Amino acid sequence: MRIHFHDTLDHDKLPVLPAEWEAASALAGDIGAGHEVSFHIDWAAVRDEVEVVVAPPYRLKQIDLSAAPKLKLVQSTWAGMDGLYPFDMIPPGAILMNNRGVHGKRAGEFCAMAILMLTNKMPLFTTQQREQKWQREIGSLASAKKLTVVGLGAIGTEAARWGKKFGMHVTGVRHGEAQHDDCDVTVPFERIDEVIPHADILLLACPLTPKTKNLLSRPRLMAMPPGAGVINVGRGGLVEQEALCDALEENRLGGAVLDVFAEEPIPAGDRIWTTKNVVITPHMSADDPERYNADTLAIFFENLTAYLAGKAPPTAVDRAKGY
Amino acid sequence: MRIHFHDTLDHDKLPVLPAEWEAASALAGDIGAGHEVSFHIDWAAVRDEVEVVVAPPYRLKQIDLSAAPKLKLVQSTWAGMDGLYPFDMIPPGAILMNNRGVHGKRAGEFCAMAILMLTNKMPLFTTQQREQKWQREIGSLASAKKLTVVGLGAIGTEAARWGKKFGMHVTGVRHGEAQHDDCDVTVPFERIDEVIPHADILLLACPLTPKTKNLLSRPRLMAMPPGAGVINVGRGGLVEQEALCDALEENRLGGAVLDVFAEEPIPAGDRIWTTKNVVITPHMSADDPERYNADTLAIFFENLTAYLAGKAPPTAVDRAKGY
Repeated sequence: MRIHFHDTLDHDKLPVLPAEWEAASALAGDIGAGHEVSFHIDWAAVRDEVEVVVAPPYRLKQIDLSAAPKLKLVQSTWAGMDGLYPFDMIPPGAILMNNRGVHGKRAGEFCAMAILMLTNKMPLFTTQQREQKWQREIGSLASAKKLTVVGLGAIGTEAARWGKKFGMHVTGVRHGEAQHDDCDVTVPFERIDEVIPHADILLLACPLTPKTKNLLSRPRLMAMPPGAGVINVGRGGLVEQEALCDALEENRLGGAVLDVFAEEPIPAGDRIWTTKNVVITPHMSADDPERYNADTLAIFFENLTAYLAGKAPPTAVDRAKGY
Repeated sequence: MRIHFHDTLDHDKLPVLPAEWEAASALAGDIGAGHEVSFHIDWAAVRDEVEVVVAPPYRLKQIDLSAAPKLKLVQSTWAGMDGLYPFDMIPPGAILMNNRGVHGKRAGEFCAMAILMLTNKMPLFTTQQREQKWQREIGSLASAKKLTVVGLGAIGTEAARWGKKFGMHVTGVRHGEAQHDDCDVTVPFERIDEVIPHADILLLACPLTPKTKNLLSRPRLMAMPPGAGVINVGRGGLVEQEALCDALEENRLGGAVLDVFAEEPIPAGDRIWTTKNVVITPHMSADDPERYNADTLAIFFENLTAYLAGKAPPTAVDRAKGY
């Protein structure tokens, strides 16, 4: 097929490089052969012939996909689709696919770390270190705490698995009624208010959609157990950030480990920088430069295989659900 | 036997309480019955009759154990024996025992956290957060890093096990030639200089003795791989702290997670408070108030059982080795 990769050439942003394509297409066997491919050249030069575009959401938004008459597939190189919602720039006849799954293992280890950071009171110690204050406080075994994971995609599944390895009781919250093998209990999203009062650690790993925006609202933060902890590796918009800061400052929550924020980069002077008992990482939990593009391309070839066989690509985006 | 518990009544320091003794002696069966026990009363009132003293090292140093004519056993409620070295206040005829093993599970989880904090560059992000600086840096899967654990007691063993669960190559360094089941390679302490150049993460979990004092010296810090990380859950005296600060400030090391320090509490104005890329916790890695005294008493009863059967108590301290 006629495949075009459209990305920045800023290497910090991990654009797919020709050598990575060559390696991945060789690994893919027959499905990897016989394509005409271009990399990061002017959209106008490829628009009339392109059948497949591979790009991150912010680059997809910069090009006029509707003007590509032969476009059939759009492969996002990110998993989060919130930047493309409500998908009106993707032509109705094209299939949009993301690379969900690619973040699982790395982000899972970040979640494992964040869980243990909460049981070891690291948000408190981070604040004490900043204040040059030595005050012993005692952590607990992870197995003494109950973990609730919201969103059971690749990242949430890995987080639930680590929770079980740590001996924790794990509750999953997901879209739909299905139970999840790695959770002790799984409830549909509509029942989240039943489980929040028992969530010693609440881990958010779900997509940001109109339905999940501000899901961790002020009333839900108030309903968490005293001293509970929050982990967010999803999107900043999942949490009412001002209410989270209030809950931390008032010692109603014990701590938070946050990789995503209402605004990124966090602006200078933003309250979250100095809120107590919070640990801040700069949206890096899922990045794995050594595997990222190889894994994304492997997902792309799985999608292409399905498409050419007349089946739904495994990571096709459900525009109604938003992910 | 005539057993005396000698501790402060400061509950933050977890003195063994009568109810904890009752619970533990009931669990211990026959060996728990028939003793005459006193708690935290004046030493002069018990000195002439006491056969067993149970106390933390700093309290043992405050009483004249040589003046107790019937003293047979001294059970420390701490594992670290560095405060009692060279043991001249323990009468030669008495057996000194510690509670090594009691810290394993809790401290093991702290080590698991610290390992993942280094692979996720948390020391860097802690410094960036303090400076209100947003700069993305990318972590790596733990399996891409080599872990070296110095000291394979209860804590080091748990740390090595977590390293293997994270898919890491684990090298152990220990007293003696024996290989360790949870390490890929185990070397005797005398060969530590051969393994330090390959230690992406060096975890110190050994006792502080004259032999291990300053074991992580300036030359050895210089010999670590560029960007390597250090974890210390042993004693501050294991590390040449000034040299560690230099290595962090000069970016030769990537980060450190430290629970123990040259001086504790860390004095106001101490350089370590503001050294970059260090995470500071206030010597809490092993504390588990819910299990600590129960587990210590269980170890005590195992020791007592062995002693009464004419065998060496399992956690007897080897005065020559220093632990």
